Amino acid sequence: MTIASGPPAPSAAAQSAFLEAIGRALPEVRLLTDPVDREGYRNDETAYLHAGLPLAVALPASTAEVAGLVRVAAEHRIPVVPRGAGTGLSGGAAGIEGGLTIALTRMDRILELDRENLCVVVQPGIINAELKRAMAAEGLFYAPDPASYEICSIGGNLGTNAGGLCCIKYGQTRESVLGLEVVLADGSVIRTGGRNVKDVAGYALTHLFVGSQGTLGIITEATLRLRPLPPPRSTMLAFFASLEAAGDAVARMTAAGLVPVTLELMDRATIAAVDDWHQLGLDRDAEAMLMIESDLPAAGAAAEIEAAGAACEAAGATSIVQAADATEADWLRQARRLALRALERQGTVRMEDVGVPRARVPQLLRAIEAIADRHGVRCATFGHAGDGNLHPNFIFERDDARAEELTEAARADLYRAALDLGGTITAEHGIGASRREFLPAQVGEGTVEVMRRIKSALDPLGILNPGRVL
Amino acid sequence: MTIASGPPAPSAAAQSAFLEAIGRALPEVRLLTDPVDREGYRNDETAYLHAGLPLAVALPASTAEVAGLVRVAAEHRIPVVPRGAGTGLSGGAAGIEGGLTIALTRMDRILELDRENLCVVVQPGIINAELKRAMAAEGLFYAPDPASYEICSIGGNLGTNAGGLCCIKYGQTRESVLGLEVVLADGSVIRTGGRNVKDVAGYALTHLFVGSQGTLGIITEATLRLRPLPPPRSTMLAFFASLEAAGDAVARMTAAGLVPVTLELMDRATIAAVDDWHQLGLDRDAEAMLMIESDLPAAGAAAEIEAAGAACEAAGATSIVQAADATEADWLRQARRLALRALERQGTVRMEDVGVPRARVPQLLRAIEAIADRHGVRCATFGHAGDGNLHPNFIFERDDARAEELTEAARADLYRAALDLGGTITAEHGIGASRREFLPAQVGEGTVEVMRRIKSALDPLGILNPGRVL
Repeated sequence: MTIASGPPAPSAAAQSAFLEAIGRALPEVRLLTDPVDREGYRNDETAYLHAGLPLAVALPASTAEVAGLVRVAAEHRIPVVPRGAGTGLSGGAAGIEGGLTIALTRMDRILELDRENLCVVVQPGIINAELKRAMAAEGLFYAPDPASYEICSIGGNLGTNAGGLCCIKYGQTRESVLGLEVVLADGSVIRTGGRNVKDVAGYALTHLFVGSQGTLGIITEATLRLRPLPPPRSTMLAFFASLEAAGDAVARMTAAGLVPVTLELMDRATIAAVDDWHQLGLDRDAEAMLMIESDLPAAGAAAEIEAAGAACEAAGATSIVQAADATEADWLRQARRLALRALERQGTVRMEDVGVPRARVPQLLRAIEAIADRHGVRCATFGHAGDGNLHPNFIFERDDARAEELTEAARADLYRAALDLGGTITAEHGIGASRREFLPAQVGEGTVEVMRRIKSALDPLGILNPGRVL
Repeated sequence: MTIASGPPAPSAAAQSAFLEAIGRALPEVRLLTDPVDREGYRNDETAYLHAGLPLAVALPASTAEVAGLVRVAAEHRIPVVPRGAGTGLSGGAAGIEGGLTIALTRMDRILELDRENLCVVVQPGIINAELKRAMAAEGLFYAPDPASYEICSIGGNLGTNAGGLCCIKYGQTRESVLGLEVVLADGSVIRTGGRNVKDVAGYALTHLFVGSQGTLGIITEATLRLRPLPPPRSTMLAFFASLEAAGDAVARMTAAGLVPVTLELMDRATIAAVDDWHQLGLDRDAEAMLMIESDLPAAGAAAEIEAAGAACEAAGATSIVQAADATEADWLRQARRLALRALERQGTVRMEDVGVPRARVPQLLRAIEAIADRHGVRCATFGHAGDGNLHPNFIFERDDARAEELTEAARADLYRAALDLGGTITAEHGIGASRREFLPAQVGEGTVEVMRRIKSALDPLGILNPGRVL
């Protein structure tokens, strides 16, 4: 599969003129031009996409440097790819042939902690887990936790509106953003929002830039919401003899008004892969496992876990395991945390990211099984059952020549199945480069046209991450 | 103060050509053309703005009728004002001279309740309280509750991203919107979002349309998030000898991680006005009163109220009154609910709507006092202390000829004070027509320019609610 870029690659003459201009205008900016260095910026975590090799990789140290880079790129009509830690799963930060990749990894500072107003101002390059740790040391909590939180950057989280395991309670990244600083396509710099939790002055630009994957502007600073640090989580696993029973348990929790901080699902194939690897003693006869966690204070957690357990029992759970303490909770939590890596031990994994209205998770699980059967593809599914977001993983032998072709066929069916259930082709990974051609099927041509008009209005030359999202 | 409309009023010839075209193209649409009928659509709740008289008022019964009206208006370059219940506080739905007002009051149906997925599909004309009641009858809860919830429409709430008393816990209107149907400026119809709580397919158009006050499109249907109905609220009032002490109590609750469903403040002047009218026995010596409510289930509410009470005591509350039961809670709740009407008994009230980062509420209160003193204006303040949103109310004798001039001077200072504290000139009422000229001071010219480009991209003829927001 080839990333379809928007504009054709700039001519060789344009490329060298651009490099000269950068050297002249911004001699202080760290710029990688050696092919070996640049090669590391070709792909993000979508190695299956045939991404381009950037002409150069800039590692700016300030907003002014980012602005300068974009200004020169605009003058020379060179496409610009903003990039965080490169852990994206939709090709949003993959290279563009002859383009400039701006890696924001060096802009990784916490600029200000405003403890009283429960917010923190950060640069985009900071790693999610580092921010979490720094805040925890202050008794504060930055909620969003993509599965890759140990290695992904806040800038990438903002670009994709990243999700994770605690969205059911705390929302996706967007819900934790109060304000932004953004470099626009002409190199000018604007600010949106601020530190106010309520603010209706003008259009919701903060919301718009978050999730736009660098196609409307480059986020160079963000003001993020914090919460007081919740207590360590109470953790429970519940096993079910059928997907329907697990789905029923989720529905019962929803109906009871429970909002646990984690409500994750693994199917039989995922349970087996994890247990093969780490012998956690999971129930391998089960069709599905739920992991449920509470971070309520004091007696609240016990009450929430008890109520969730009651919902699981009423739905016919075959067994329930509850952690007695934090160490045991860590042990149980591994079951879910290891899921992807356990599957990757079995071969090449292509992770998908569909979502459905949350009551339709069992139907989606059945549809996934049918699609895998139809295409003769091995599939293991886990995901965020509490908000309807599942990750089916197509698994191939490493030397399977048909992997690409089969994945393409299977995922087209998968997207169709999700859409038929009123769902989405991407709940948290993003459209990026890998799902572009499917966007109209979900939102409709008229809605895509509105997105295109906004893109043209903010980036008339089309230099910001062309060929991504739209 | 005059509403500055965007384009000049259409010529008389254009107006009559338009009316003829509407009659020809859409004979079935209910259209008010009698001046007496139209007069009722000149103002919203900002009677102090000198709004225009619409040429005609359409009362469509369907999305197709709205689309048809916009199409004909676009052909004839007639400005279109979408309008809900007319309770807005920023002139967003006020008439435009020679324009077409599209009142969505007849499109007031609940189209579908999706109980399993905790969402409901509604037309924009439904009154907030009617939706709340219908959902409560099903054991469900639509959270957003602007103070005007008994008379305001969901469409208006969507247009302004309306706030209310429970934002601290449940967010503003935007946080409860999953999807929209929107009629665009050319009369085409698009859909955004859906029923998925997680969905990152393309740009955040749902978020963008909400709060855009009909300047980017007309919302004709919305899919709204529901929650299980919480139990009746536990209610407490706390009185303080100083604004700082009340602010300290709020800060202590925030730091303790308390998120009560209501955390409201009234200053001394508001306390007196309410008590004069209804003799609730409030502590009139207090400088400030907080109303705190919990809607947690079971023992949670008592624990939350107790923790809030402890925070108030630690901050030096002079007295605390806790409702023993639901009837007493209703009684206490009146104190806050009656605030605006109590003030209106004293004269003409001009309600403002500033916000600050929540820890800066005491500074904002002091600034408000100083501004009122400086301009010799009577001012009473209440508002949503828990999220930094205060409503200073300038109060004048009904025949005070200087009211307008004084208000204009005082509010310019008020906005400056809020901005100096890192705040906003409107936390929940909207920019509308009344705050347009102050928007650049808050967000900056560059950010306004981005909003303008989005406006032009979506409404190139500038017919959608011109002169509002931008």
